[in-house]
Amino acid sequence: MANDEPVNTGEVNDEQVTPEAISELAKRRGFFFGSSEAYGGVAGFYTMGPQGAALKGNVESAWRDRFAVKEGNQEIEAPTIMPEPVFEASGHLDGFDDMLVECGECGESHRADHLIEDETGIEEAETLPIPEVEALIEEHDLRCPNCGASLAGRPVEDFNLMFETSIGPGSGQTGYLRPETAQGIFVEFGRLKEYARNQLPFGVAQIGRAYRNEISPRRGLIRTREFTQAELEQFVDPERDEPSLDDVRDVEVRLYPATEQEKEGGDYLETTIGEAVETGVVANEWIAYYLGIAKRWFERVGVDADRFRYRQHLPGERAHYASDCWDAEAELGSVSASGDAADRLATDPSAGDWVEIAGFSYRTDYDLSKHGEHADESFTVFEQYDEPKTVERAVVDPDMSALGPEFGAEATDVADALRDLAALDPDAFGGDEVVVEIDGEEYAVPTDVANFRVEEQTESGEHVTPHVIEPSFGVDRTVYTVIAHAYARDEVDGETRTYLRFVPEIAPTSVAVFPLLSNDESLTALAGEIADDLREAGLSVAYDDSGNIGRRYRRQDEIGTPFCVTVDPEGVEGTGPETATVRERDSTAQIRVPVDELADELAAVRRGRKTFDDLRAAYGAVETADA
Amino acid sequence: MANDEPVNTGEVNDEQVTPEAISELAKRRGFFFGSSEAYGGVAGFYTMGPQGAALKGNVESAWRDRFAVKEGNQEIEAPTIMPEPVFEASGHLDGFDDMLVECGECGESHRADHLIEDETGIEEAETLPIPEVEALIEEHDLRCPNCGASLAGRPVEDFNLMFETSIGPGSGQTGYLRPETAQGIFVEFGRLKEYARNQLPFGVAQIGRAYRNEISPRRGLIRTREFTQAELEQFVDPERDEPSLDDVRDVEVRLYPATEQEKEGGDYLETTIGEAVETGVVANEWIAYYLGIAKRWFERVGVDADRFRYRQHLPGERAHYASDCWDAEAELGSVSASGDAADRLATDPSAGDWVEIAGFSYRTDYDLSKHGEHADESFTVFEQYDEPKTVERAVVDPDMSALGPEFGAEATDVADALRDLAALDPDAFGGDEVVVEIDGEEYAVPTDVANFRVEEQTESGEHVTPHVIEPSFGVDRTVYTVIAHAYARDEVDGETRTYLRFVPEIAPTSVAVFPLLSNDESLTALAGEIADDLREAGLSVAYDDSGNIGRRYRRQDEIGTPFCVTVDPEGVEGTGPETATVRERDSTAQIRVPVDELADELAAVRRGRKTFDDLRAAYGAVETADA
Repeated sequence: MANDEPVNTGEVNDEQVTPEAISELAKRRGFFFGSSEAYGGVAGFYTMGPQGAALKGNVESAWRDRFAVKEGNQEIEAPTIMPEPVFEASGHLDGFDDMLVECGECGESHRADHLIEDETGIEEAETLPIPEVEALIEEHDLRCPNCGASLAGRPVEDFNLMFETSIGPGSGQTGYLRPETAQGIFVEFGRLKEYARNQLPFGVAQIGRAYRNEISPRRGLIRTREFTQAELEQFVDPERDEPSLDDVRDVEVRLYPATEQEKEGGDYLETTIGEAVETGVVANEWIAYYLGIAKRWFERVGVDADRFRYRQHLPGERAHYASDCWDAEAELGSVSASGDAADRLATDPSAGDWVEIAGFSYRTDYDLSKHGEHADESFTVFEQYDEPKTVERAVVDPDMSALGPEFGAEATDVADALRDLAALDPDAFGGDEVVVEIDGEEYAVPTDVANFRVEEQTESGEHVTPHVIEPSFGVDRTVYTVIAHAYARDEVDGETRTYLRFVPEIAPTSVAVFPLLSNDESLTALAGEIADDLREAGLSVAYDDSGNIGRRYRRQDEIGTPFCVTVDPEGVEGTGPETATVRERDSTAQIRVPVDELADELAAVRRGRKTFDDLRAAYGAVETADA
Repeated sequence: MANDEPVNTGEVNDEQVTPEAISELAKRRGFFFGSSEAYGGVAGFYTMGPQGAALKGNVESAWRDRFAVKEGNQEIEAPTIMPEPVFEASGHLDGFDDMLVECGECGESHRADHLIEDETGIEEAETLPIPEVEALIEEHDLRCPNCGASLAGRPVEDFNLMFETSIGPGSGQTGYLRPETAQGIFVEFGRLKEYARNQLPFGVAQIGRAYRNEISPRRGLIRTREFTQAELEQFVDPERDEPSLDDVRDVEVRLYPATEQEKEGGDYLETTIGEAVETGVVANEWIAYYLGIAKRWFERVGVDADRFRYRQHLPGERAHYASDCWDAEAELGSVSASGDAADRLATDPSAGDWVEIAGFSYRTDYDLSKHGEHADESFTVFEQYDEPKTVERAVVDPDMSALGPEFGAEATDVADALRDLAALDPDAFGGDEVVVEIDGEEYAVPTDVANFRVEEQTESGEHVTPHVIEPSFGVDRTVYTVIAHAYARDEVDGETRTYLRFVPEIAPTSVAVFPLLSNDESLTALAGEIADDLREAGLSVAYDDSGNIGRRYRRQDEIGTPFCVTVDPEGVEGTGPETATVRERDSTAQIRVPVDELADELAAVRRGRKTFDDLRAAYGAVETADA
């Protein structure tokens, strides 16, 4: 039906889709903008305007639905301020640093690794040791981006990225704003395992703010000092628990393994989750499972699969806790994925401007073990065996009446040392005499005094420190990606139109309702009723009766509203059921739908159960200009 | 139908409903608990467990629905860290203090006003000046609650309640964790008014974390250092804009006006919003409007109207920005509102343990004026008049050829001073000579040289600094209130049962689904399908097949799940449609419902369109014991 799209002549120049264009639209229409600009602003802090807050809320709801509800995981909400001992245990107090170099002339601070990456061909400079970074600055004669002074010879220092504060009056207690939501889950493991009835595997999710005191924030919403994470900590017994890999075996993924990154001209691996596991490219099945689940989820919220890949961390790049890590990366450059650009993006990993939007880490038992060492609680789960196990265990039962006279005050220590030795090295009891060491002193004991023997013991289970698989999503970066991948321009009625192709589920406004004329009571009354009906059906609705209809359509196009319902005289005249037109954003095609079917139909599209094409087939098109 | 409740013999001893009992249940079942207890904890920080996070999420959604969506207001999301100049302007840097007294013996810090309130009969001690507080400590010989040492003679100091941190490396920039979400709205007023198309009135809502570095947090979730606020800033032209008072005229409210609080034995005023406005008890119509909207909302989420009141702030108690303020207060003591206790609560304002859960402030133009003075932007709205206005304006047009020779270098300043004087005091130009003052020096000018005249000017509108009405809700306190008011005990099958009477809209779990027997495939398969159907209908569903059915009911009772659906052999036998039983939490009554009608019926109850009694009338009761 060519007459469905009488005015929409398709896409125009993709080069207009720049980060600056997105940022301008974001400010003007209320998606996001730098905070406190009336006071000159502070780098790294952004406010979500009404459209952005709604979009972000929808992305969070979709994440919750997928990673908490559908996976059967718990969700919690922990404070953002945590006490110092937590970060001593987690390793953040010592290891959560960036490399800082301060200009000797203007005093401006810079990330030394970024300067090197920007000015030399070197990648992942953050993995280099500090002396090497200082040498590279000297060698390449790197200069202050602010004032141009040479940075050669300036010291490079570790700068801890946590925001510090003081809890309570006086000397108080040192606290930090959490650098990741994860620690708020780990420290409560003792309770959380009880809520999960002490059964592995179980997962705990959290959506909330996290903070990093970046040395020099850049790229707008991409690298901020305050941001929202959606994290899932999946606790498993690595020797026993398996994910439902069958659910995601067929999911297609574009992988960029570490081995390919290390090669000259390395390639993507276009594969499926099932194959990736079979060939061992993704070593951990839980990581593979969540790569599959997440790939589907990113497509669900409108991330363009052609501008999406999974990149494995290089060995030197991994965080202190991770044994393997894959990043979900989105392409956010100005190159739109069509034609030659799309071909290059699909085949050349060095093409495009890729940004991490989620990470999938196999953290092993690092977190719970560390907290177990530092805190007053156990961070283990007692796992019952299916059947009680009989194990052979070497034991001693030292004859104190012999040890006492021989070793005096040390007799008890010697007995303890014999017990420890029996557990560690039963063979040591093979001869006539056994030697134990206490505080550097050796004590020889006749073996028969130790009463060594091997006993059979029955055990009903064991204490296991769970391993952690962590899918961690940057919500703001995902929101930015969704906007960037939705941003489009075409020509309608001879004029360039900007619109956002949000999927219905995450669009800030699901439907806009217009009376064609604002001074016609029969139209405005019906439009008001329709708006109420649609809201009642759970849709987010905008009502607009000002300006000509073309301008009203454009306004909704720019905020990505998928559907506009217009009440026109034709729909209320005559004796048949009242009707209204429904205009679809991307095609600008219109159909006419009975008013009392609108709510059900549009709610079905919002939930992904129907498409606009289904409605078009059911109701037939309307020939009309989009103005 | 007495046989509907064969086993539930009604309420038992109310005295068991203590804050300690609530706190114990909250920990055990995963509502909330003190954070980081594995590290000894930090006073004033709480984590919401799975049940609490879900409950809180539902309360936030209900708030958003009412105060953002239904009111047609925008919602935004601002950062929690803001730069120092914002709080210089807002007054928080100077005025957001509590009175601190430190024990000279043990070093423990205390709120001086709280000590006075606890140990003397004095109320609202925070309104007293510091010297008076010091004198009262001496006079009553107040002692350190920690070690018992005398506090007489110890200095009382102002302690600022904002958490401070440093943004960026080096000397950086001082930032504070916001003490209220409101400032994140005010500083962005310039953009927000554009999104509202520069039309007053408009409202901007925000739900998010706020922080107060309390000297000595107490009462668990009631006074914490990190908490969630839901705030609405309603911007109005006080001379022109009016709320839709008709929508709330009939809402009944229990008011405790300042005048009654100041009387010996003052009384409640049981009235309606309409009457309260007519009699002037509530002076501002916008405040009255939101008191009405909020009263209905609190009842909607399950706050007990018998344990709810609005208390007006005493003049000395109001924040620095407020011209009038009413608090919503909930009664949270151990006294349940039944029998004599209810009578006393209803008639004696001094009875019960009342806690503020929301505040309704008329902030006038304080906030926007202050930011207008401190920031680089205008915080006004240009309001077009309906018709252009003609106004008389005194003007001068000084003759510089006369002023120049007379005043030399000061001539321009003299001319400016004449212009200012004409606007301020036209009468000064009545004589032959007019005198202006510049930097303390007087200059006499012949009036005819000033060329004074009164002109008619046409103005199309004016710049107005909007006034702000702020309904501000403590989300965590509301959540606590909802739990406390839902907490109940009765006797079922001869055993005491604890249950939470949450309304269906905010219950963490809407429905639990059980197969009666976990080893019968026909029951588990159908139960699984029902659970999927209910989830698809937007309900929060728990599936449980472990333990006897009575224990499963109790577990759901304790987390406040309104309905349990049980699939039993009777429902799957025979040739008729499959059925399942639905058990209602409070009455423990059961009905039998066809499986394919379950989702629609329970979703209707969740949305408040039907009640369980409607279902009982439609389907008839089942006679069964609750075990």
